[in-house]
Amino acid sequence: MAGGIFITLEGGEGGGKSTQARKLAEALTARGHEVILTREPGGAPGAEAIRKLLVEGAGNRWDGLTEALLHTAARRDHLVKTVWPAVGAGKTVISDRFFDSTIAYQGYGHGLDIAALRELQRVAIGDFKPDITLILDLPARVGLARAHVRGGTETRYESMAVAFHERLRQGFLEIAADEPKRCRVIDADHDIDTVHAAIMSAVTTFLGKR
Amino acid sequence: MAGGIFITLEGGEGGGKSTQARKLAEALTARGHEVILTREPGGAPGAEAIRKLLVEGAGNRWDGLTEALLHTAARRDHLVKTVWPAVGAGKTVISDRFFDSTIAYQGYGHGLDIAALRELQRVAIGDFKPDITLILDLPARVGLARAHVRGGTETRYESMAVAFHERLRQGFLEIAADEPKRCRVIDADHDIDTVHAAIMSAVTTFLGKR
Repeated sequence: MAGGIFITLEGGEGGGKSTQARKLAEALTARGHEVILTREPGGAPGAEAIRKLLVEGAGNRWDGLTEALLHTAARRDHLVKTVWPAVGAGKTVISDRFFDSTIAYQGYGHGLDIAALRELQRVAIGDFKPDITLILDLPARVGLARAHVRGGTETRYESMAVAFHERLRQGFLEIAADEPKRCRVIDADHDIDTVHAAIMSAVTTFLGKR
Repeated sequence: MAGGIFITLEGGEGGGKSTQARKLAEALTARGHEVILTREPGGAPGAEAIRKLLVEGAGNRWDGLTEALLHTAARRDHLVKTVWPAVGAGKTVISDRFFDSTIAYQGYGHGLDIAALRELQRVAIGDFKPDITLILDLPARVGLARAHVRGGTETRYESMAVAFHERLRQGFLEIAADEPKRCRVIDADHDIDTVHAAIMSAVTTFLGKR
């Protein structure tokens, strides 16, 4: 994996992850990086087929652990087919969500055993981790209000209670506190350009230290 | 889970698992059991959707571990939606394949780490096991010849090499040797009625000991 960089964006709903991932990709491309912009669940043809099973249908279609298994299957396919080859070839891969979302949503959010979820990740993908993870943090109510404006068909998570999203936020903050070297918490309760500037500052600092 | 019984049929290709599962279901129904006949991957609407991802498409669509994760996600859905409710209600559930197939195909067959595959099962379904597992054993070449006669669209596994199926057979025999209380090896290199009689003998002995 020499040379390449794997950057993930994480956080609850409405934090602007997709917009910020795109702006980060544009900025790093302008600096000469060969950038692959991707997302989870998905990011490879097989993983996108699994995504369809996850985001469509009734909210109770899968129990929490089945959902975690499907996310993890999609994650491995995404890594094998997209991320590992690109990072191995020296590219910069930016993913909108990665394994921290499984720990936050299924663990902190839905109450599944976090140690078991981490063990599942270890079995599925070994010790592989992002080089840097940007956690876009904002109050649950603000994020949910923003997500509802966006609309679309993938409203499963958005329709869950604010209490769930508060647990999610605390989960992401605990993950960041546990791994301060990998994770940077970005205050996402600002306009797009301000958040982008904070992200560029964090990424530039990381790149300077490599 | 008091009262119910969970019976699984395992083995390589062409051993007659589906036929024997149906005949066993009929025989136990005639003896007064309330029988649910099911299969893996599948056996519940969500699990059948995952099955489609597994059995259709190119043979190299998924890497071995992604395939194991998908099988395990389908297995948990099958248990949550079909097997556990039925066994909990005192029914007799007969499944054409279960977790031994994951250990045999992805572990012994494709060479994935067997301890990791067992750990994956533990995370996904805990300590739950079948009450009795019937392993339909026959030489790989005989089974493959029978499977080729059958035809159909799900020819992925059948098209793999005989060497693979020899490893598979040895894997199932090792599984049976490791768990002699749960597993019974049935010589499947006979006509349907002879194999059915051997299965009924094994199941009747098990039922008599309960």
